[in-house]
Amino acid sequence: MNFTEKLTGAVRRNKSLVCVGLDPDPELMPEILSVSEFNKAIIDATADLVCAYKPNLAFYEALGDEGMSALKATVKHVPNHIPVIADAKRSDIGNTAKAYARALFDYFGFDASTVNPYLGYDSVEPFLRYQEKGVIILCRTSNAGAVDFQSLRCETESGPRPLFEIVARKAQAWNKYGNIGLVVGATYPEELKLIRQSYPDMPLLIPGIGAQGGDLALTVRYGVDARREKTIINSSRQIIYASRGKDFAEAARKAAQTLRDQINQFLSSP
Amino acid sequence: MNFTEKLTGAVRRNKSLVCVGLDPDPELMPEILSVSEFNKAIIDATADLVCAYKPNLAFYEALGDEGMSALKATVKHVPNHIPVIADAKRSDIGNTAKAYARALFDYFGFDASTVNPYLGYDSVEPFLRYQEKGVIILCRTSNAGAVDFQSLRCETESGPRPLFEIVARKAQAWNKYGNIGLVVGATYPEELKLIRQSYPDMPLLIPGIGAQGGDLALTVRYGVDARREKTIINSSRQIIYASRGKDFAEAARKAAQTLRDQINQFLSSP
Repeated sequence: MNFTEKLTGAVRRNKSLVCVGLDPDPELMPEILSVSEFNKAIIDATADLVCAYKPNLAFYEALGDEGMSALKATVKHVPNHIPVIADAKRSDIGNTAKAYARALFDYFGFDASTVNPYLGYDSVEPFLRYQEKGVIILCRTSNAGAVDFQSLRCETESGPRPLFEIVARKAQAWNKYGNIGLVVGATYPEELKLIRQSYPDMPLLIPGIGAQGGDLALTVRYGVDARREKTIINSSRQIIYASRGKDFAEAARKAAQTLRDQINQFLSSP
Repeated sequence: MNFTEKLTGAVRRNKSLVCVGLDPDPELMPEILSVSEFNKAIIDATADLVCAYKPNLAFYEALGDEGMSALKATVKHVPNHIPVIADAKRSDIGNTAKAYARALFDYFGFDASTVNPYLGYDSVEPFLRYQEKGVIILCRTSNAGAVDFQSLRCETESGPRPLFEIVARKAQAWNKYGNIGLVVGATYPEELKLIRQSYPDMPLLIPGIGAQGGDLALTVRYGVDARREKTIINSSRQIIYASRGKDFAEAARKAAQTLRDQINQFLSSP
């Protein structure tokens, strides 16, 4: 079963477009737990409510050895029918990109990874060759700095277009195995609308709701595909740090359920 | 002592602009050695011939736990007067970039890191705040795919410029702590010339000679700064895999020495 099949399977089974970002921060976690225990509790409490999990590697790397073994244990703990996306944003030349793909797909066993497009095709291709894995290319990121380069208007044969649109167009052209998706931030609804309209069947990973301030109603209206099965709406802090007390897992469950239901309500209202 | 001071100190002491890329690949290494032992032997054999070492994190991550502990041991083993650059090409939104910077600078203890600019200022800023560390921004990478996006001509107030030039200009504007450098590949000599002319004092990390085919004479002519102390010419495979036999360290020493002397000869010929 490839990434897209696994994703749509989880979407249907759990009636959910919610992805939980597993970004452990010892300053925000209940003090008594290890990262691995924390993540396992969050997963156990939310596995029937989500379409994917997305650990961001930075938070594990910052914790050294312990972080890396917690990451491995976390990927392993996710039920097999739910895809796990490495938010790694890797980029390097071909020979090196191959080593990154090996690390993420073979060593850790992720179902998909985010990648940064700045180095071009040969930096993405070693990931694509893992045809059963998802390769989610940064297109329009959710942060303020996204405008610095991604909004630059670049010359193309059909007139000037912003860089992020050219990235999306290239991603489409590179998609010979059908395993490419795009990252488009909820904080840029007009850009999200444009990308979804242009690529109706492309899986979109949408960060930026919650702490980053993206509007959920607009995200659903503009970002969700017609079949409602190739859209991954991520929330990290809002869910996993819903409570810092003993009830953190229960609070995470409630927050995930609320988000899932809000999304589904927006989808069902005319 | 900050990164630039450490770099120029090593350049002067060893009369060398050579950086050795420590990219361990078990298929190319002597079979009897661990990654950590291999790197230590390479470092011991070349520490008086180089201005920096540059482990690329992909090769360590691909080896899992063992790779990560070898990376930590490697950084520690480099003599304190020689800077160690994390070739990590990280990029993420502010809160997450902070965790990456913590991993590279606090946990591993690198003196500098490469970063990918696609996410803009707030993705680079958490690295810059480590004012004593070097932050080397990808400008023009050495691979074939570099042309896909980095060569796009983008609209600016002073007319259309290629994306990589705009990245360099932004990097200059962001350089309030004086700790920014740029990556420019030896495989694009005209672009290298243009960047060095525009930013005469900026540290340049130049990959792409050797296995990737960049011309050394042109690299020296176009890339080296007037004071000959802020240019880092990287070679990985050509040095560390000079021999796969028992004499690998000695062969690496010879290869490093040859490269250093060739560069110095190009510098001294009119």
